[in-house]
Amino acid sequence: MNIQRDCYVCIYTQALNITKRLNLDEYISSEILRGTAKILSKYDLSFMPPEIAKEVYEFIEKTLNIADPFEKEKKEAIKKALELKPVLEEKLKNSKNFLFNAIKIAIAGNIIDLGVNQSYDLDEEIRDIFNMQFRHNDFDKLKEKLKEARMLCYLADNSGENVFDEILVKSIKKLYPEIKIYYVVRGKPIINDVTLKDLEGLEINSLAEVIDSGVPTPGFHLKFANEKSKEIFYNSDLVISKGMGNFEVLFGECGREVFYLFKVKCDVVANACGCKKGDNVILKGEK
Amino acid sequence: MNIQRDCYVCIYTQALNITKRLNLDEYISSEILRGTAKILSKYDLSFMPPEIAKEVYEFIEKTLNIADPFEKEKKEAIKKALELKPVLEEKLKNSKNFLFNAIKIAIAGNIIDLGVNQSYDLDEEIRDIFNMQFRHNDFDKLKEKLKEARMLCYLADNSGENVFDEILVKSIKKLYPEIKIYYVVRGKPIINDVTLKDLEGLEINSLAEVIDSGVPTPGFHLKFANEKSKEIFYNSDLVISKGMGNFEVLFGECGREVFYLFKVKCDVVANACGCKKGDNVILKGEK
Repeated sequence: MNIQRDCYVCIYTQALNITKRLNLDEYISSEILRGTAKILSKYDLSFMPPEIAKEVYEFIEKTLNIADPFEKEKKEAIKKALELKPVLEEKLKNSKNFLFNAIKIAIAGNIIDLGVNQSYDLDEEIRDIFNMQFRHNDFDKLKEKLKEARMLCYLADNSGENVFDEILVKSIKKLYPEIKIYYVVRGKPIINDVTLKDLEGLEINSLAEVIDSGVPTPGFHLKFANEKSKEIFYNSDLVISKGMGNFEVLFGECGREVFYLFKVKCDVVANACGCKKGDNVILKGEK
Repeated sequence: MNIQRDCYVCIYTQALNITKRLNLDEYISSEILRGTAKILSKYDLSFMPPEIAKEVYEFIEKTLNIADPFEKEKKEAIKKALELKPVLEEKLKNSKNFLFNAIKIAIAGNIIDLGVNQSYDLDEEIRDIFNMQFRHNDFDKLKEKLKEARMLCYLADNSGENVFDEILVKSIKKLYPEIKIYYVVRGKPIINDVTLKDLEGLEINSLAEVIDSGVPTPGFHLKFANEKSKEIFYNSDLVISKGMGNFEVLFGECGREVFYLFKVKCDVVANACGCKKGDNVILKGEK
């Protein structure tokens, strides 16, 4: 999915928001906004949003000499999600439509996103979690695939969201104990996307093989993926992709079927998938 | 008043909004946003917002080969204001505090502004017009000055707003028939700022001498002012300045006392004058 005009201003606003979140002074903020503008001026409509975001965030990290500007927020998001986990698991255990509800939990977790220019309320999101409505709902197709699958590639997204994914992965393992699951994360810190380091000590490591994709963009961009993650991506019987960033770089581009699970958080992605901002999506994407 | 970090994103958002208002396609919109980004990358914190806006709007006009992209909106705003004029004049005529209320009308007109990233509701603005509250209220000082003044320099702002200024100018003439009033407008179309051409056929021409300042920035920037308007500005007994753009380039910079009348429409200007967004201001600015 290529950028549209709104993406320029969205990414620029993200840069401004970072300067505020990090309490930078006006001088260094101006340097960051001027440098970001220079980067934006280079990109025409043939690029995808995560490609531009990559360069902008790398420029900001280099300018500030900080390798992971969202480290604190990521830790806090995971901590908060872990507090909610037992409650959600209990709720799930006693629910009908076990698998569908586990997917709803994973999609609810997708609200945790610092790369979009909006705040989120996780507590509100999960209050009525199993009543989640969908714009696209390819759950039945996903379920059919899961029944047959031996190997599942699960493309991760944000920190905090990973705990909600863990609940879904665990549910899949419970229903289909034989399935081999790969949980594929970013190769380096980018926005609040989850990395190997963020997952240290978490249950996901015993449920799935956690894979470093090598990808530095906020989306599983195949151009940057290492051989192992590409092999898993293409050889799996089923790919589940979380979040907008992965959708933006894969949808219509990757040459294979992918099931996209995410919340629509901007109009550009909404247009690309025939949705509205705020919609929930289980979308079977073709080659 | 120099730019702050928010100004970069504000101006960028204005460029995006123009592409939408003019129904431009994605390709040309991208060209405009890339070119605007290149301009933004050049400006450090030593510049004033209207200086950057000037270059951005000129670039957009050149790219689109349109001399006055807001021509239609300006005409419509003046038409709408002229419809409201008799009602407002009737209301004013029968009111106590005649001069103060005439100033309130002029400030209410300042809500008509296409250079800020917010929409406005003129009808709502004038519904309860004489109950307008002020954050800064130097009305008494302004009134004292008016009593003594022989020559008044009135710096205009936006199209449509000029009709509300006309009511104030007419009120001043009624109270002080001897005063010579200059109504100073922009030298060329910039955003929806009022120019000589926009005032053709309007009553203001019989109440004041309308002066083309030569200024191409959305604010009376002395660097660009022609000799005549500079002479009037410095030789007048009293300067009344309308709008944020004039405030941004003159406040603390111009070397003379100016009475600023405006609505605060952004946080950067709010910070500069100790106000909040949405406040109304009658502010005596020192040298």
